[in-house]
Amino acid sequence: MSSPTHYLISAPGKVILFGEHAVVYGKTAIAGSLDGLRTYILFEKSDDGLLELNLPKLGLHLPLIWPISALPYSKVAAVSKATDNNSSQELAFNEELLKELKPIVLDGNAKNKDIQEINELQQVAASVFLYLYTSLEDKQNSWCGMKVHVTSDLPVGAGLGSSASYSVCLATGLLLALGHIPVPNSNEGNTDTSFSGYSSPMNLINRWAFQAEKVIHGIPSGIDNAVATYGGAVSFTKGEMENVIGFQLLRFLLTNTKISRDTRAQVAKVRVLYDKYPHIVDPILEAIEGMSLSFNEIELIDINHYLLNSLGVGHSSIDRVREITAQHSLHSKLTGAGGGGCVLTLLRDDITSDEITKIKSALASLGFESFETQVGGNGVSVIDSSVTISKQEFLSSENIQQKFSVWKHFT
Amino acid sequence: MSSPTHYLISAPGKVILFGEHAVVYGKTAIAGSLDGLRTYILFEKSDDGLLELNLPKLGLHLPLIWPISALPYSKVAAVSKATDNNSSQELAFNEELLKELKPIVLDGNAKNKDIQEINELQQVAASVFLYLYTSLEDKQNSWCGMKVHVTSDLPVGAGLGSSASYSVCLATGLLLALGHIPVPNSNEGNTDTSFSGYSSPMNLINRWAFQAEKVIHGIPSGIDNAVATYGGAVSFTKGEMENVIGFQLLRFLLTNTKISRDTRAQVAKVRVLYDKYPHIVDPILEAIEGMSLSFNEIELIDINHYLLNSLGVGHSSIDRVREITAQHSLHSKLTGAGGGGCVLTLLRDDITSDEITKIKSALASLGFESFETQVGGNGVSVIDSSVTISKQEFLSSENIQQKFSVWKHFT
Repeated sequence: MSSPTHYLISAPGKVILFGEHAVVYGKTAIAGSLDGLRTYILFEKSDDGLLELNLPKLGLHLPLIWPISALPYSKVAAVSKATDNNSSQELAFNEELLKELKPIVLDGNAKNKDIQEINELQQVAASVFLYLYTSLEDKQNSWCGMKVHVTSDLPVGAGLGSSASYSVCLATGLLLALGHIPVPNSNEGNTDTSFSGYSSPMNLINRWAFQAEKVIHGIPSGIDNAVATYGGAVSFTKGEMENVIGFQLLRFLLTNTKISRDTRAQVAKVRVLYDKYPHIVDPILEAIEGMSLSFNEIELIDINHYLLNSLGVGHSSIDRVREITAQHSLHSKLTGAGGGGCVLTLLRDDITSDEITKIKSALASLGFESFETQVGGNGVSVIDSSVTISKQEFLSSENIQQKFSVWKHFT
Repeated sequence: MSSPTHYLISAPGKVILFGEHAVVYGKTAIAGSLDGLRTYILFEKSDDGLLELNLPKLGLHLPLIWPISALPYSKVAAVSKATDNNSSQELAFNEELLKELKPIVLDGNAKNKDIQEINELQQVAASVFLYLYTSLEDKQNSWCGMKVHVTSDLPVGAGLGSSASYSVCLATGLLLALGHIPVPNSNEGNTDTSFSGYSSPMNLINRWAFQAEKVIHGIPSGIDNAVATYGGAVSFTKGEMENVIGFQLLRFLLTNTKISRDTRAQVAKVRVLYDKYPHIVDPILEAIEGMSLSFNEIELIDINHYLLNSLGVGHSSIDRVREITAQHSLHSKLTGAGGGGCVLTLLRDDITSDEITKIKSALASLGFESFETQVGGNGVSVIDSSVTISKQEFLSSENIQQKFSVWKHFT
């Protein structure tokens, strides 16, 4: 069988179920994968020695293009070492490589620079791609060029892990295309995966996605890429992550209030309160952590909502979502940093699609956008070129995940 | 100087500032006296050997009347012992006396029984009066009859300590009229009083008011009568009370949502939550207790509001009051058991009476009744017969406290 000529990769977004803000103070938080809201990247093999990156969802309507030969491979010590399956060491971040890539990133737009400008976000997205490509390139096994098409269901900057799902897709596609991991055989999703050790393809993907997250965020927590890689639900305490074994898939309505979040400001606000009243705020954070340890009880959603409000990170838009959903006896809480942003509403099993439609339209009338989604589903998955995927079909599709039943899952 | 022929007694209601519900679990709560919302009792000496009790605010438009000779004095061991200033023992409750009084209470209405029925609440109010009178009667020093007129600014059953202010007024008037304590000389209010020991008239009043509260409530906490007696603010932890020294008089708007409270149900609801999630509820209660230790910070009002909501004792009527007051940058929280009841709004010094009028009318349009009040003012006070007080004036007056500048305060 000839080696694949294209890969379609999919990785989920994430939501924080419980523990936002408390996690900053060393308490446990739980995040889950957003099954219906994912990023997709199609990798197509080419023979022209060029890397082509298409980011239409980020507003770039023309591709960025770099010759493979232009990349600073000399800044990468030894690829074999970095992808060594038996290494238990965390990958060191290659600051020098990132610095070297800065001017190269802009060159990718050279052919189109009179037509499109590339903004900060687009530059970062391109840097991640080139950082991973340069780090993972292996003359012996790599393609001689590739066209990369990115699309996503996830709003950017809404706290739903869009960057991590992008990072995970990129890492996966490049590890496959550059010959470091094989295509998995399993069609069975498995979110009950151990994170310990580095011996599996999944763990390698997660390590490189974490590198990508560092390019984007500087000091990421690592929880977003873990969720996008492994799926399911992940608990996070003082930098230590654990898969939440036996997490049940939960159905949520996820509402984006479109009140722009400012995570930094919200985190700072809580810090001020904490410093002023540690004897009040510390027990509140402890109570919030308590949720993370029994996250499957409906009434805890309300308790958590009020506890976050007590920390000053509530917003009237969140209260509006709560009011509308409460009319249908549904429980909602903010997810993420608060002060606007997104709201999670747990959907009971008995709620009809008719009711959901009503709720969504009531939310829409206030300018909010809402999605039905499942939390705790599969992580990164892949379709190889044994399945024909038309690029046009890929780019125009509204529901890529459900279109194909042949997604394969890593172990 | 002849001995007084009448006394006018006034005692304040109370609000819980911080710590409701938490106090049930052994945490500290703070209650303050409601300076502008008080109960008043006028005691008039008579020579007809009759006790006359007028309770128009409780719906009794005709007096209840008992001959002094009908009371079961044999059930009282030794008055001198009970009022012994040097005794450090808590007064024992006289169950037998209360039992004996039950049928006698109803006899007080005998003359009017075809015209007015007396309900449970009215019976309890009469029992308290007769219990204290019988316990404190002293042949040598007592009046040979009295007419007692009760009025109050306080709504009954709204968690504002109406029963305790009634108990304190009754205990004070009877201790004075029956010769156990002298009229004080001081016109200076003093809310920085130590509660320890039993040597002062004020402590004696508080002990007998606590007896009265037992007649009314069975097992009262003692905080309501302490606040009505001493004024100021009182902290309460596991049955131990302490005067909050240096408590600053705070100006509040007190709003009665008129959503009827059911303290027992609210307390039970929190208990269920506590038993189910002790690791969540216990830190919430701890955070609430934290408020009690730094109660003079505005933002804590919001934090406390949300923490009470997290315990499930909020109510939409309370949220409405918060919304209206927030429009004027004022902070509100429920006071008492929640699930309706009363809401406290801290009034900043710079808020104009114009603004307050606007807020009150917005609240009234939702069916809520609100009062401007100060918290932390004087406790029980008295005017003796050196000042002429017309009964009609007393019964019709809207603002008795401010009408007279000659209130005297106990020590």
